Amino acid sequence: MPKKAPPGPRDERGVLSARILAAAREQFAQHGWAGTTIRAIARAADVDPALVYHYFGSKEALLDAATDPPPRWLESVAATWATPSHELGAALLRLMLGAWRDDEIGAVLRAVLLTAAHDETTREKLRRVVESSLMGVAQLGADESDRRTRSGLISSQIMGLAMMRFVWRIEPVASMSDDEIVAAVAPNLQRYIDGTLS
Amino acid sequence: MPKKAPPGPRDERGVLSARILAAAREQFAQHGWAGTTIRAIARAADVDPALVYHYFGSKEALLDAATDPPPRWLESVAATWATPSHELGAALLRLMLGAWRDDEIGAVLRAVLLTAAHDETTREKLRRVVESSLMGVAQLGADESDRRTRSGLISSQIMGLAMMRFVWRIEPVASMSDDEIVAAVAPNLQRYIDGTLS
Repeated sequence: MPKKAPPGPRDERGVLSARILAAAREQFAQHGWAGTTIRAIARAADVDPALVYHYFGSKEALLDAATDPPPRWLESVAATWATPSHELGAALLRLMLGAWRDDEIGAVLRAVLLTAAHDETTREKLRRVVESSLMGVAQLGADESDRRTRSGLISSQIMGLAMMRFVWRIEPVASMSDDEIVAAVAPNLQRYIDGTLS
Repeated sequence: MPKKAPPGPRDERGVLSARILAAAREQFAQHGWAGTTIRAIARAADVDPALVYHYFGSKEALLDAATDPPPRWLESVAATWATPSHELGAALLRLMLGAWRDDEIGAVLRAVLLTAAHDETTREKLRRVVESSLMGVAQLGADESDRRTRSGLISSQIMGLAMMRFVWRIEPVASMSDDEIVAAVAPNLQRYIDGTLS
Protein backbone atom coordinates (compact mmCIF):
# COMPACT_ATOMS: atom_id res chain seq x y z
CA MET A 1 0.00 0.00 0.00
CA PRO A 2 1.60 3.31 -1.02
CA LYS A 3 2.35 5.70 1.82
CA LYS A 4 0.54 9.00 1.81
CA ALA A 5 2.77 11.97 1.00
CA PRO A 6 3.82 13.56 4.29
CA PRO A 7 2.44 17.01 5.09
CA GLY A 8 5.06 19.64 4.40
CA PRO A 9 6.22 22.14 1.80
CA ARG A 10 4.12 20.60 -0.95
CA ASP A 11 0.87 20.90 1.02
CA GLU A 12 1.80 24.35 2.21
CA ARG A 13 2.48 25.38 -1.37
CA GLY A 14 -1.01 24.20 -2.35
CA VAL A 15 -2.64 26.15 0.46
CA LEU A 16 -0.65 29.32 -0.17
CA SER A 17 -1.08 29.27 -3.93
CA ALA A 18 -4.86 28.77 -3.56
CA ARG A 19 -4.89 31.75 -1.20
CA ILE A 20 -2.91 33.86 -3.69
CA LEU A 21 -5.24 32.86 -6.56
CA ALA A 22 -8.34 33.76 -4.54
CA ALA A 23 -6.84 37.16 -3.66
CA ALA A 24 -5.83 37.70 -7.30
CA ARG A 25 -9.37 37.01 -8.57
CA GLU A 26 -10.75 39.48 -6.06
CA GLN A 27 -8.19 42.18 -6.86
CA PHE A 28 -8.39 41.83 -10.65
CA ALA A 29 -12.21 41.88 -10.51
CA GLN A 30 -12.20 44.85 -8.16
CA HIS A 31 -9.53 47.04 -9.76
CA GLY A 32 -9.17 45.74 -13.31
CA TRP A 33 -5.97 44.63 -15.00
CA ALA A 34 -4.18 48.01 -14.91
CA GLY A 35 -5.31 48.88 -11.37
CA THR A 36 -4.00 45.67 -9.80
CA THR A 37 -0.46 45.13 -8.49
CA ILE A 38 1.34 42.00 -7.30
CA ARG A 39 2.04 43.92 -4.10
CA ALA A 40 -1.70 44.46 -3.46
CA ILE A 41 -2.46 40.80 -4.18
CA ALA A 42 0.30 39.69 -1.82
CA ARG A 43 -1.03 41.98 0.89
CA ALA A 44 -4.59 40.64 0.44
CA ALA A 45 -3.29 37.05 0.58
CA ASP A 46 -1.05 37.88 3.55
CA VAL A 47 2.12 36.59 1.89
CA ASP A 48 5.37 38.17 0.73
CA PRO A 49 5.30 39.59 -2.84
CA ALA A 50 8.46 37.56 -3.56
CA LEU A 51 6.48 34.37 -2.95
CA VAL A 52 3.87 35.44 -5.53
CA TYR A 53 6.64 35.93 -8.11
CA HIS A 54 8.24 32.64 -7.05
CA TYR A 55 4.99 30.70 -7.59
CA PHE A 56 3.58 32.48 -10.63
CA GLY A 57 6.44 34.35 -12.31
CA SER A 58 4.61 37.48 -13.47
CA LYS A 59 1.38 39.46 -13.21
CA GLU A 60 0.36 38.08 -16.63
CA ALA A 61 0.89 34.46 -15.58
CA LEU A 62 -0.96 35.08 -12.31
CA LEU A 63 -4.00 36.52 -14.12
CA ASP A 64 -3.88 33.54 -16.45
CA ALA A 65 -3.86 31.05 -13.56
CA ALA A 66 -6.49 33.01 -11.62
CA THR A 67 -8.93 32.99 -14.53
CA ASP A 68 -8.61 29.35 -15.55
CA PRO A 69 -12.03 27.70 -15.18
CA PRO A 70 -11.86 25.02 -12.44
CA PRO A 71 -12.33 21.40 -13.61
CA ARG A 72 -15.61 21.25 -11.64
CA TRP A 73 -16.97 23.96 -13.92
CA LEU A 74 -15.99 22.13 -17.09
CA GLU A 75 -17.62 18.98 -15.69
CA SER A 76 -20.90 20.73 -14.92
CA VAL A 77 -20.88 22.27 -18.40
CA ALA A 78 -20.37 18.86 -20.00
CA ALA A 79 -23.16 17.37 -17.86
CA THR A 80 -25.53 20.04 -19.16
CA TRP A 81 -24.94 18.96 -22.76
CA ALA A 82 -26.91 15.76 -22.06
CA THR A 83 -30.08 17.84 -21.51
CA PRO A 84 -32.78 17.19 -24.13
CA SER A 85 -32.64 19.96 -26.71
CA HIS A 86 -36.02 21.48 -25.87
CA GLU A 87 -35.01 21.97 -22.21
CA LEU A 88 -31.51 23.26 -22.91
CA GLY A 89 -32.40 26.97 -22.46
CA ALA A 90 -33.53 26.43 -18.87
CA ALA A 91 -30.61 24.08 -18.16
CA LEU A 92 -27.97 26.59 -19.39
CA LEU A 93 -29.58 29.31 -17.31
CA ARG A 94 -29.58 27.19 -14.14
CA LEU A 95 -25.97 26.24 -14.87
CA MET A 96 -24.99 29.91 -15.02
CA LEU A 97 -26.99 30.86 -11.91
CA GLY A 98 -25.39 28.03 -9.92
CA ALA A 99 -21.91 28.83 -11.19
CA TRP A 100 -22.09 32.47 -10.02
CA ARG A 101 -23.23 31.33 -6.58
CA ASP A 102 -20.21 29.00 -6.26
CA ASP A 103 -17.40 30.75 -4.33
CA GLU A 104 -14.58 29.65 -6.60
CA ILE A 105 -16.33 29.45 -10.00
CA GLY A 106 -18.21 32.70 -9.40
CA ALA A 107 -14.95 34.47 -8.55
CA VAL A 108 -13.32 33.13 -11.73
CA LEU A 109 -16.25 34.22 -13.92
CA ARG A 110 -16.27 37.67 -12.34
CA ALA A 111 -12.51 38.09 -12.86
CA VAL A 112 -12.77 36.94 -16.50
CA LEU A 113 -15.67 39.25 -17.38
CA LEU A 114 -14.08 42.23 -15.63
CA THR A 115 -10.63 41.95 -17.18
CA ALA A 116 -11.59 40.74 -20.67
CA ALA A 117 -12.27 44.27 -21.87
CA HIS A 118 -8.62 45.27 -21.46
CA ASP A 119 -6.49 42.18 -21.48
CA GLU A 120 -6.13 40.24 -24.73
CA THR A 121 -5.22 36.96 -23.00
CA THR A 122 -8.35 37.02 -20.85
CA ARG A 123 -10.46 38.03 -23.83
CA GLU A 124 -9.14 34.97 -25.66
CA LYS A 125 -10.06 32.92 -22.59
CA LEU A 126 -13.58 34.37 -22.56
CA ARG A 127 -13.86 33.49 -26.24
CA ARG A 128 -12.81 29.91 -25.47
CA VAL A 129 -15.26 29.69 -22.55
CA VAL A 130 -18.05 30.85 -24.87
CA GLU A 131 -17.09 28.39 -27.59
CA SER A 132 -16.25 25.42 -25.40
CA SER A 133 -19.39 25.84 -23.26
CA LEU A 134 -21.60 24.90 -26.17
CA MET A 135 -19.38 22.79 -28.42
CA GLY A 136 -20.64 19.56 -26.89
CA VAL A 137 -24.26 20.32 -27.65
CA ALA A 138 -24.77 17.99 -30.58
CA GLN A 139 -28.10 19.48 -31.59
CA LEU A 140 -26.99 23.13 -31.79
CA GLY A 141 -27.09 24.56 -35.29
CA ALA A 142 -27.46 23.23 -38.82
CA ASP A 143 -23.72 23.59 -39.54
CA GLU A 144 -20.55 24.99 -37.96
CA SER A 145 -21.31 28.60 -38.88
CA ASP A 146 -24.90 28.40 -37.61
CA ARG A 147 -23.66 26.76 -34.42
CA ARG A 148 -21.19 29.60 -33.75
CA THR A 149 -23.87 32.24 -34.37
CA ARG A 150 -26.31 30.54 -31.99
CA SER A 151 -23.59 30.05 -29.41
CA GLY A 152 -22.69 33.76 -29.58
CA LEU A 153 -26.30 34.87 -29.22
CA ILE A 154 -26.90 32.53 -26.27
CA SER A 155 -23.79 33.98 -24.65
CA SER A 156 -24.92 37.56 -25.28
CA GLN A 157 -28.07 36.91 -23.25
CA ILE A 158 -26.45 34.83 -20.51
CA MET A 159 -23.56 37.21 -19.98
CA GLY A 160 -25.73 40.34 -20.15
CA LEU A 161 -27.92 38.80 -17.49
CA ALA A 162 -24.86 37.94 -15.39
CA MET A 163 -23.57 41.53 -15.66
CA MET A 164 -26.97 42.97 -14.65
CA ARG A 165 -27.54 40.50 -11.82
CA PHE A 166 -24.09 39.85 -10.35
CA VAL A 167 -21.73 42.61 -11.47
CA TRP A 168 -23.76 45.82 -11.88
CA ARG A 169 -26.49 44.52 -9.52
CA ILE A 170 -29.30 46.45 -11.16
CA GLU A 171 -32.79 45.86 -9.73
CA PRO A 172 -35.13 44.08 -10.11
CA VAL A 173 -32.96 41.62 -12.08
CA ALA A 174 -30.46 41.39 -9.18
CA SER A 175 -33.11 40.16 -6.73
CA MET A 176 -35.46 38.03 -8.84
CA SER A 177 -35.56 34.37 -7.75
CA ASP A 178 -33.89 31.75 -9.92
CA ASP A 179 -37.34 30.43 -10.88
CA GLU A 180 -38.51 33.90 -11.96
CA ILE A 181 -35.34 34.34 -14.03
CA VAL A 182 -35.79 30.95 -15.69
CA ALA A 183 -39.47 31.59 -16.49
CA ALA A 184 -38.64 34.99 -17.99
CA VAL A 185 -35.41 34.22 -19.86
CA ALA A 186 -35.30 30.50 -20.77
CA PRO A 187 -37.78 30.80 -23.69
CA ASN A 188 -35.53 33.47 -25.22
CA LEU A 189 -32.48 31.22 -24.94
CA GLN A 190 -34.56 28.40 -26.37
CA ARG A 191 -35.24 30.47 -29.48
CA TYR A 192 -31.48 30.95 -29.97
CA ILE A 193 -31.05 27.17 -29.57
CA ASP A 194 -33.66 25.88 -31.99
CA GLY A 195 -35.66 28.81 -33.38
CA THR A 196 -35.53 30.53 -36.78
CA LEU A 197 -33.04 33.41 -36.58
CA SER A 198 -33.15 35.06 -40.00
CA MET B 1 -28.72 92.47 -33.59
CA PRO B 2 -26.66 90.96 -30.73
CA LYS B 3 -22.94 90.70 -31.33
CA LYS B 4 -21.43 87.23 -31.41
CA ALA B 5 -19.28 86.48 -28.40
CA PRO B 6 -15.65 87.14 -29.33
CA PRO B 7 -13.34 84.16 -29.62
CA GLY B 8 -11.23 83.87 -26.50
CA PRO B 9 -10.97 82.11 -23.16
CA ARG B 10 -14.59 80.92 -23.22
CA ASP B 11 -14.32 79.23 -26.64
CA GLU B 12 -10.93 77.85 -25.79
CA ARG B 13 -12.35 76.48 -22.58
CA GLY B 14 -15.05 74.65 -24.52
CA VAL B 15 -12.53 73.14 -26.91
CA LEU B 16 -10.11 72.10 -24.20
CA SER B 17 -12.73 70.67 -21.91
CA ALA B 18 -14.21 68.60 -24.76
CA ARG B 19 -10.71 67.29 -25.47
CA ILE B 20 -10.20 66.41 -21.81
CA LEU B 21 -13.58 64.64 -21.66
CA ALA B 22 -12.80 62.59 -24.78
CA ALA B 23 -9.42 61.57 -23.34
CA ALA B 24 -11.04 60.74 -19.99
CA ARG B 25 -13.64 58.43 -21.63
CA GLU B 26 -10.88 56.63 -23.47
CA GLN B 27 -8.65 56.26 -20.40
CA PHE B 28 -11.42 55.18 -18.02
CA ALA B 29 -12.70 52.64 -20.57
CA GLN B 30 -9.19 51.38 -21.26
CA HIS B 31 -7.77 51.18 -17.73
CA GLY B 32 -10.82 51.18 -15.45
CA TRP B 33 -11.47 53.52 -12.56
CA ALA B 34 -8.50 52.47 -10.39
CA GLY B 35 -6.04 52.25 -13.29
CA THR B 36 -6.69 55.79 -14.54
CA THR B 37 -4.90 58.92 -13.32
CA ILE B 38 -5.55 62.61 -13.97
CA ARG B 39 -1.94 62.78 -15.13
CA ALA B 40 -2.53 60.13 -17.84
CA ILE B 41 -5.73 61.86 -18.98
CA ALA B 42 -3.91 65.21 -19.17
CA ARG B 43 -1.11 63.60 -21.19
CA ALA B 44 -3.61 62.01 -23.61
CA ALA B 45 -5.43 65.34 -24.00
CA ASP B 46 -2.12 67.20 -24.33
CA VAL B 47 -2.89 69.66 -21.53
CA ASP B 48 -1.39 70.40 -18.13
CA PRO B 49 -2.79 68.27 -15.24
CA ALA B 50 -3.44 71.53 -13.35
CA LEU B 51 -5.90 72.54 -16.07
CA VAL B 52 -7.82 69.28 -15.64
CA TYR B 53 -8.15 69.99 -11.90
CA HIS B 54 -9.07 73.59 -12.62
CA TYR B 55 -11.89 72.59 -14.99
CA PHE B 56 -13.22 69.49 -13.23
CA GLY B 57 -12.00 69.60 -9.62
CA SER B 58 -11.37 65.90 -9.01
CA LYS B 59 -11.08 62.50 -10.66
CA GLU B 60 -14.58 61.65 -9.38
CA ALA B 61 -16.10 64.79 -10.92
CA LEU B 62 -14.26 64.17 -14.19
CA LEU B 63 -15.60 60.60 -14.45
CA ASP B 64 -19.05 61.96 -13.69
CA ALA B 65 -18.81 64.57 -16.47
CA ALA B 66 -17.22 62.10 -18.91
CA THR B 67 -20.02 59.57 -18.47
CA ASP B 68 -23.00 61.91 -18.72
CA PRO B 69 -25.12 60.86 -21.72
CA PRO B 70 -25.07 63.66 -24.36
CA PRO B 71 -28.43 65.42 -24.98
CA ARG B 72 -28.44 63.95 -28.52
CA TRP B 73 -28.60 60.49 -26.98
CA LEU B 74 -31.55 61.38 -24.73
CA GLU B 75 -33.32 62.86 -27.75
CA SER B 76 -32.85 59.75 -29.87
CA VAL B 77 -34.07 57.61 -26.98
CA ALA B 78 -37.20 59.72 -26.62
CA ALA B 79 -37.81 59.57 -30.38
CA THR B 80 -37.73 55.76 -30.19
CA TRP B 81 -40.59 55.74 -27.67
CA ALA B 82 -42.97 56.79 -30.42
CA THR B 83 -42.40 53.47 -32.23
CA PRO B 84 -45.51 51.26 -32.40
CA SER B 85 -45.29 48.67 -29.63
CA HIS B 86 -44.96 45.66 -31.94
CA GLU B 87 -41.88 47.18 -33.65
CA LEU B 88 -40.21 48.41 -30.49
CA GLY B 89 -37.77 45.46 -30.20
CA ALA B 90 -36.20 46.22 -33.58
CA ALA B 91 -36.24 49.98 -32.90
CA LEU B 92 -34.42 49.64 -29.56
CA LEU B 93 -31.84 47.40 -31.17
CA ARG B 94 -31.18 49.84 -34.03
CA LEU B 95 -30.98 52.67 -31.46
CA MET B 96 -28.27 50.78 -29.58
CA LEU B 97 -26.34 49.81 -32.72
CA GLY B 98 -26.36 53.41 -33.94
CA ALA B 99 -25.36 54.79 -30.54
CA TRP B 100 -22.26 52.59 -30.32
CA ARG B 101 -21.20 53.71 -33.79
CA ASP B 102 -21.45 57.38 -32.78
CA ASP B 103 -18.01 58.67 -31.74
CA GLU B 104 -19.18 60.58 -28.69
CA ILE B 105 -22.16 58.47 -27.53
CA GLY B 106 -20.29 55.21 -28.16
CA ALA B 107 -17.37 56.45 -26.05
CA VAL B 108 -19.73 57.43 -23.22
CA LEU B 109 -21.49 54.06 -23.28
CA ARG B 110 -18.18 52.22 -23.28
CA ALA B 111 -16.86 54.27 -20.36
CA VAL B 112 -20.08 53.74 -18.38
CA LEU B 113 -20.17 49.96 -18.90
CA LEU B 114 -16.48 49.56 -18.14
CA THR B 115 -16.41 51.57 -14.92
CA ALA B 116 -19.84 50.65 -13.53
CA ALA B 117 -18.52 47.42 -12.02
CA HIS B 118 -16.23 49.31 -9.63
CA ASP B 119 -17.52 52.80 -9.20
CA GLU B 120 -20.79 53.29 -7.33
CA THR B 121 -21.53 56.68 -8.96
CA THR B 122 -21.24 55.24 -12.46
CA ARG B 123 -23.28 52.21 -11.45
CA GLU B 124 -26.03 54.58 -10.30
CA LYS B 125 -25.73 56.32 -13.67
CA LEU B 126 -26.03 53.01 -15.52
CA ARG B 127 -29.10 52.24 -13.43
CA ARG B 128 -30.60 55.59 -14.42
CA VAL B 129 -29.77 55.04 -18.10
CA VAL B 130 -31.53 51.66 -17.95
CA GLU B 131 -34.58 53.10 -16.21
CA SER B 132 -34.82 56.36 -18.13
CA SER B 133 -34.30 54.66 -21.51
CA LEU B 134 -37.61 52.89 -21.24
CA MET B 135 -39.69 55.06 -18.92
CA GLY B 136 -41.31 56.90 -21.81
CA VAL B 137 -42.62 53.72 -23.40
CA ALA B 138 -46.27 54.03 -22.46
CA GLN B 139 -47.13 50.49 -23.47
CA LEU B 140 -44.44 48.70 -21.46
CA GLY B 141 -45.77 46.53 -18.65
CA ALA B 142 -49.09 46.07 -16.87
CA ASP B 143 -47.95 48.09 -13.83
CA GLU B 144 -44.85 49.78 -12.40
CA SER B 145 -43.31 46.53 -11.12
CA ASP B 146 -43.93 44.68 -14.40
CA ARG B 147 -42.48 47.62 -16.32
CA ARG B 148 -39.26 47.56 -14.27
CA THR B 149 -38.89 43.80 -14.75
CA ARG B 150 -39.35 44.08 -18.52
CA SER B 151 -37.01 47.05 -18.69
CA GLY B 152 -34.32 45.09 -16.81
CA LEU B 153 -34.67 42.05 -19.07
CA ILE B 154 -34.53 44.17 -22.22
CA SER B 155 -31.37 45.79 -20.87
CA SER B 156 -29.80 42.42 -20.01
CA GLN B 157 -30.08 41.40 -23.67
CA ILE B 158 -29.09 44.75 -25.17
CA MET B 159 -26.09 45.24 -22.91
CA GLY B 160 -24.92 41.63 -23.20
CA LEU B 161 -25.02 42.06 -26.96
CA ALA B 162 -23.10 45.35 -26.69
CA MET B 163 -20.42 43.70 -24.53
CA MET B 164 -20.03 40.79 -26.98
CA ARG B 165 -20.05 42.98 -30.08
CA PHE B 166 -18.27 46.19 -29.07
CA VAL B 167 -16.30 45.54 -25.88
CA TRP B 168 -15.15 41.91 -25.90
CA ARG B 169 -15.48 41.70 -29.71
CA ILE B 170 -16.29 37.99 -29.78
CA GLU B 171 -17.03 36.52 -33.22
CA PRO B 172 -19.30 36.04 -35.06
CA VAL B 173 -21.44 38.52 -33.06
CA ALA B 174 -18.81 41.27 -33.51
CA SER B 175 -18.99 41.08 -37.33
CA MET B 176 -22.64 40.30 -38.08
CA SER B 177 -24.42 43.02 -40.05
CA ASP B 178 -26.97 45.23 -38.30
CA ASP B 179 -29.71 43.50 -40.29
CA GLU B 180 -28.55 40.05 -39.21
CA ILE B 181 -28.44 41.20 -35.57
CA VAL B 182 -31.95 42.67 -35.80
CA ALA B 183 -33.37 39.53 -37.44
CA ALA B 184 -31.78 37.31 -34.79
CA VAL B 185 -32.33 39.38 -31.64
CA ALA B 186 -35.35 41.68 -32.12
CA PRO B 187 -37.96 38.90 -31.63
CA ASN B 188 -36.36 38.11 -28.26
CA LEU B 189 -36.57 41.75 -27.19
CA GLN B 190 -40.13 41.81 -28.46
CA ARG B 191 -41.02 38.97 -26.08
CA TYR B 192 -39.65 41.00 -23.15
CA ILE B 193 -41.76 43.95 -24.35
CA ASP B 194 -45.14 42.31 -24.78
CA GLY B 195 -44.82 38.56 -24.19
CA THR B 196 -45.83 36.43 -21.21
CA LEU B 197 -42.88 36.20 -18.82
CA SER B 198 -44.05 33.93 -16.00
